[in-house]
Amino acid sequence: MTPSSHQRIILASTSTLHGEEYLAYLQPAIRTLFTGIREIIFIPYARPGGISHDDYTSRAAGFFAAMGISVKGLHTFASPADALRKAEGFFTGGGNTFLLVKQLHELGLMNVLKEVVENGAPYLGTSAGSNIACINMQTTNDMPIVYPPGFETMGLVPFNLNAHYLDPVPGSQHMGETRETRIKEFHTQQDVPVVGLREGSWLEVTGTDIFLRGHLSARIFKAGREPQEHAPGMLQL
Amino acid sequence: MTPSSHQRIILASTSTLHGEEYLAYLQPAIRTLFTGIREIIFIPYARPGGISHDDYTSRAAGFFAAMGISVKGLHTFASPADALRKAEGFFTGGGNTFLLVKQLHELGLMNVLKEVVENGAPYLGTSAGSNIACINMQTTNDMPIVYPPGFETMGLVPFNLNAHYLDPVPGSQHMGETRETRIKEFHTQQDVPVVGLREGSWLEVTGTDIFLRGHLSARIFKAGREPQEHAPGMLQL
Repeated sequence: MTPSSHQRIILASTSTLHGEEYLAYLQPAIRTLFTGIREIIFIPYARPGGISHDDYTSRAAGFFAAMGISVKGLHTFASPADALRKAEGFFTGGGNTFLLVKQLHELGLMNVLKEVVENGAPYLGTSAGSNIACINMQTTNDMPIVYPPGFETMGLVPFNLNAHYLDPVPGSQHMGETRETRIKEFHTQQDVPVVGLREGSWLEVTGTDIFLRGHLSARIFKAGREPQEHAPGMLQL
Repeated sequence: MTPSSHQRIILASTSTLHGEEYLAYLQPAIRTLFTGIREIIFIPYARPGGISHDDYTSRAAGFFAAMGISVKGLHTFASPADALRKAEGFFTGGGNTFLLVKQLHELGLMNVLKEVVENGAPYLGTSAGSNIACINMQTTNDMPIVYPPGFETMGLVPFNLNAHYLDPVPGSQHMGETRETRIKEFHTQQDVPVVGLREGSWLEVTGTDIFLRGHLSARIFKAGREPQEHAPGMLQL
């Protein structure tokens, strides 16, 4: 898998920081990503309920209106594949990764989206929307509430993410696995590197260069090695 | 699905309580469950690494030796299906539920185990080993480190478990979903009731009666209803 030299991508750990407005901390980065773009497609499929696809799209549209960018929900198109091919840019929101991946595969959209993003259409993902840019969804924190036809995702970046990465709680008496233990379990099965992306961090992909943005370090997991902290800046795995 | 009137089952949230020995808090209940039994089969398939199936089996065997019960690992039999059919009782340990379910399905053992337990062979499960007694594994907390051929499990009880159930952390600024939110997301897709089983709790199944044991309440989730706390005693869903 060779990252495309045309890619322009933002992959955020979370859409929203505690006590802040939706996407607020990402606003400058998103403005840069979508420079010159008048309309993007929002992919709402990760949302398992609570709000409808229309309402979820409206929420995204409210944010983008302030930048003069209009937003259409992918669920509103008769042919979503055609809509993806014609679109200027994309935003995939968070929710449940199993639900998102199931629908993208069943609608035949995973590879279409991959192709248009590799060809240069800017892509923004948050949480589940970031997971699908990776090799596979097998380091998600989500519950398997639906059974997708496969766990493969777009492979736009040569690693997996663990979004909303959480450090072990000091002194915890809980016996469930920590996030770090879970990722080490993943590495008993696969060699794909994993970037533990804390809330407030995002990755910025420009061609073949990938940068860790925000103020926090990320935790890098590789099979057979001790995890390492990686400071913001160019990502070197 | 009608629970068998012959079933004798213990489903524990966790094998080990913080600061205690392996299975120690369950010792009296396990002794009762396996009264008159000389040998059980241990199913080590959930373990993703760290220790081998042999070592994991030895750990279980160490506990059971004190009760005069010998333990054989299912992985040591040339025909695991035959071994299940001939066994006096079973213990499935914890680890990763995806890994456990994948192997039980691929080896054709899920239905064999279901049948022998329904016919009265006593069964002990902890964590992932408890999940597989339920309708499906879709309320596990585990990471999808492997892709099972399906999420269906034995259906020995008419609900799902969420083992290691965790209450929301008061004042948390983390934006990832709480356990309760995840289970509510499950209920946007399926109506199967979910028992949130806290560490220190276990379910005891005797025929068609199911009891919540231990000192803690369990949190009961039903589709379209507010979650409820359920005190120890006969489980009424």
